[in-house]
Amino acid sequence: MASDVLPIGGRAVTAHRRRFAIGVDFGTNSVRAVVVDVADGSEVATHVWKYPSGEAGILLDTKDPNLARQNPADYIEGFYASVRRAVAAAKRTRGFLVENIVGIGIDTTGSTPIPVDRDGMPLALRKQFRRELAAHAWLWRDHSAFAEASEITDKASKHRDRYLTKCGGVYSSEWYWSKILHCRRSAPRVFQAAYGWVELADFVPAFITGNTDPHLLARGICAAGHKAMYHDDWGGLPSERFLASLHHDLAPLRRRYAERAVPADRKAGALTGDVARKVGLPAGVPVAVGAFDAHMGAVGAGIKQGTLVKIIGTSTCDIMVAPMDEPLPDIPGLCGIVPGSVIPGMYGLEAGQSAVGDIFNWFASHLVPQKYTARGDPHTNLSRAAATIQPGTSGLLALDWNNGNRTVLVDPNLTGLLVGQTLHTSAPEVYRALVEATAFGALTIINRFEEYGIAVRDVVNCGGIAEKNPFVMQIYADACNRPMSISHSPQTCALGAAIFGAVAGGVYRNVRSAQRKMVRARRKVYRPRKAAAAVYAELYGLYKQLHDAFGTAAYEQALGHVMKSLIAIRDRTRKE
Amino acid sequence: MASDVLPIGGRAVTAHRRRFAIGVDFGTNSVRAVVVDVADGSEVATHVWKYPSGEAGILLDTKDPNLARQNPADYIEGFYASVRRAVAAAKRTRGFLVENIVGIGIDTTGSTPIPVDRDGMPLALRKQFRRELAAHAWLWRDHSAFAEASEITDKASKHRDRYLTKCGGVYSSEWYWSKILHCRRSAPRVFQAAYGWVELADFVPAFITGNTDPHLLARGICAAGHKAMYHDDWGGLPSERFLASLHHDLAPLRRRYAERAVPADRKAGALTGDVARKVGLPAGVPVAVGAFDAHMGAVGAGIKQGTLVKIIGTSTCDIMVAPMDEPLPDIPGLCGIVPGSVIPGMYGLEAGQSAVGDIFNWFASHLVPQKYTARGDPHTNLSRAAATIQPGTSGLLALDWNNGNRTVLVDPNLTGLLVGQTLHTSAPEVYRALVEATAFGALTIINRFEEYGIAVRDVVNCGGIAEKNPFVMQIYADACNRPMSISHSPQTCALGAAIFGAVAGGVYRNVRSAQRKMVRARRKVYRPRKAAAAVYAELYGLYKQLHDAFGTAAYEQALGHVMKSLIAIRDRTRKE
Repeated sequence: MASDVLPIGGRAVTAHRRRFAIGVDFGTNSVRAVVVDVADGSEVATHVWKYPSGEAGILLDTKDPNLARQNPADYIEGFYASVRRAVAAAKRTRGFLVENIVGIGIDTTGSTPIPVDRDGMPLALRKQFRRELAAHAWLWRDHSAFAEASEITDKASKHRDRYLTKCGGVYSSEWYWSKILHCRRSAPRVFQAAYGWVELADFVPAFITGNTDPHLLARGICAAGHKAMYHDDWGGLPSERFLASLHHDLAPLRRRYAERAVPADRKAGALTGDVARKVGLPAGVPVAVGAFDAHMGAVGAGIKQGTLVKIIGTSTCDIMVAPMDEPLPDIPGLCGIVPGSVIPGMYGLEAGQSAVGDIFNWFASHLVPQKYTARGDPHTNLSRAAATIQPGTSGLLALDWNNGNRTVLVDPNLTGLLVGQTLHTSAPEVYRALVEATAFGALTIINRFEEYGIAVRDVVNCGGIAEKNPFVMQIYADACNRPMSISHSPQTCALGAAIFGAVAGGVYRNVRSAQRKMVRARRKVYRPRKAAAAVYAELYGLYKQLHDAFGTAAYEQALGHVMKSLIAIRDRTRKE
Repeated sequence: MASDVLPIGGRAVTAHRRRFAIGVDFGTNSVRAVVVDVADGSEVATHVWKYPSGEAGILLDTKDPNLARQNPADYIEGFYASVRRAVAAAKRTRGFLVENIVGIGIDTTGSTPIPVDRDGMPLALRKQFRRELAAHAWLWRDHSAFAEASEITDKASKHRDRYLTKCGGVYSSEWYWSKILHCRRSAPRVFQAAYGWVELADFVPAFITGNTDPHLLARGICAAGHKAMYHDDWGGLPSERFLASLHHDLAPLRRRYAERAVPADRKAGALTGDVARKVGLPAGVPVAVGAFDAHMGAVGAGIKQGTLVKIIGTSTCDIMVAPMDEPLPDIPGLCGIVPGSVIPGMYGLEAGQSAVGDIFNWFASHLVPQKYTARGDPHTNLSRAAATIQPGTSGLLALDWNNGNRTVLVDPNLTGLLVGQTLHTSAPEVYRALVEATAFGALTIINRFEEYGIAVRDVVNCGGIAEKNPFVMQIYADACNRPMSISHSPQTCALGAAIFGAVAGGVYRNVRSAQRKMVRARRKVYRPRKAAAAVYAELYGLYKQLHDAFGTAAYEQALGHVMKSLIAIRDRTRKE
């Protein structure tokens, strides 16, 4: 296959032969395969396949609301089904030939580790573990390991290698080692049967290329660096001694992990004959190393130095890159600073908001009167009404912490707050205040980047809310007092994966060259309005006061204490 | 008439001759007349008459949402209609004779001052003023004089006579002088035509007894002391010099006001022949001096030393009495400390919450999904769902300041606050948190009384919410960790007025003796539940922290500033 590829680097591809890459995006509820033309990134065909297991693809446990698992069989069947149908659809396009598929890229949710056997196959595929929830994939949003997370935070922050400096200073219950440790404690039989643990982003490329040996399979730097405390500064994963301090059974896992994690422009391998047959492609198509959806999405949105890519959905991921030839400080509150995790050769920086669309959805489902819900979409109705409200006039201000605060406080144990209610406060006013609160959360992240010398020259927004809600995006532009661009492709994650497929397939010399051809200009730009921006500047000052009063140690004895105590009382009384 | 009266003091009345008193309660939307048996306070007949003018009796101005007036003609016609029909209904009772009516008592809303002519007749009754809103009665809830209120607060608090020490330190936009001053400024033609200003509580007794001369008519100590800064310490009303400092035209009003204000056990006069004929009673029936509804309601609920009477409706009035032979400190934050305003010979102490039912109504109308509003009463549905939630488990905490805070902060410029929201917070949880917040507000008032040496041994609740909502009352019992009694009569205000009618009519020596016969035991007692009270004790500690952080000067530079700034931005941007 490699011999087919023209060494064209950044130049235009020849007109007489179209070539294609496939991006496969494993989301929370479904998997999407996209076939794109590598010349310009245009979409030729796409197919979305919903995971059949559990509730919308998620295995739940009525006894533990923190638990969220997925059936690894859905990933395998999902790859087959989505790629097969996307390829079949692409065949109706003039000039498309399966022989002209140059590479496949994979992005997934994460941290979503899967316990695997000695051969790298998921335990859950075995009959004896099929009903064992611990043997399935531990979905990113599983929070059952919250106790382990704080234990790891505690131990890692005291370790001389300062393992948490590259991931914001706090280890999350969503992440790799928390989940593995929790499995050791809560499901020891599964833990003992697991030879290793593989991130979903690594599992799919491994599986479709047949390189599944846990010792050898390509571990992507994205998952390793952002979720498993992997960093060159301390020689890869945390030391065996450190892992043993968490639990002596964790130490061997370090040896069952590749020596070096690699960026996603590398090849994980070539499509096996077996898998190729199932999806209707020739065997041997190059497959790139996998990475997380937000990171590949940032590439699909055209990320480069100075560009912040925000992927705004139920929560947000905020991604930037920074050159590696300049010193970069540890930035407190960022979820991760990982060399090569977004664009190989650059630092990848990840921040995020724990809830954005989730807050709007919560409000619309729980606190909105019939007037806005009886006909049509509640969000459309509320946005329409809220758009007529001028900034500041409601007197309301909210904190966007209904699901905690990821950046910059890195504290899941925070809650929402609303202040300014009168006897006339209306649902659209509250809705607008919640949107504004998430905009102020976004601004806090932008400011944190800039405080540490990472200039934000440009903000590109993607994801469902950026695509569909001009009301929200205009508030973001006004509240941040910056233009807010919308990415050209509505499927930046799958496009990003296809870009990595094209690079791994040798069409482009590097990701930057591929982006120049395959990522098109922004579709729309929301510009800040002067009067609104002035009011929001004032409101942001007040937001920041509440933020610091309730969220930082400075006020811990005063009002941070109130929020924390309420959570403690809640958790205690719920058990009583 | 007086010769008919048996001097029975506290002893049982003779069985062979029943005697009756009439209580007339002028509410915000209607007037209620009740005929009661003076032997035991039992209700013989009642009639409610709705004011026909404006919206539910209130004259509004679309240009000024703060404005709320009433047509004085409604009061006159309301007295005629309600008393006539109550008396007619009473005639169907065995043993009832109009000749056996011993006295009439009047209670009204307030401060509701009416501009009157030289004869004491409302200007609004004259043709040339009929369409002039300023010439009508200025209903208690009219807030158009907010600027004048803060001017009066400013000047009175600096005055050497410390005119505000008996009314909480802040003069309200709802009160007598604010409204008069605002009339001088906004409607000078009406002001010039007005010879005097008479509180509704004084106007009705004056009108029905024919003693309407502004110089001479009986001014009740209740209205004078609580709303007009009348106090013996400085010789009655504030000095002419002080009034002139507000506006030189205000000074003469002091001379057109009775030398001494009097308690409601005194006779304002006797029913005129003309009025008597209109209501079907003999002329000459004694009429007691008027007072405010909450104060007479407290008497009807059995107030005595150590008993706090809470009248819980859209807002609350909290009334206590204290002996005058012991020194009583000025209690900061109370709306009034007035000798004789509740029970003659005792201090009357008034506190209150600016919004209680109003907050529940606001929430139910603006932020409750169809599920709870589609069928039946939203409050019933929400209460039922909220009653199943255990204290503390929602993690929510609210401040009950949607309409400001009357006691103990005396600050209308405060707003509501809700903290603790997650992505699962439900409408019944918020509803319960709002109820709990009002309960904590109630506890703050109880604590303030006790901090200043007024022991609260007993709490009697009346008003719509106390009557109808066991869910709310149980939370009050738990949150305050005290039994909460419900008054026996559902019409404590009208009963209280009838008690004053009976005393003024000479049936009883004093109010206390009348209460012993005419007020029956509590209908129901809600007792605190130990486990709930323990959780609420913790939550109240947190409520108090938020209360002090957002409401007191201690934090003014920090979080009080946030709330105040939001209000300032709101008011400014609304004008822009």
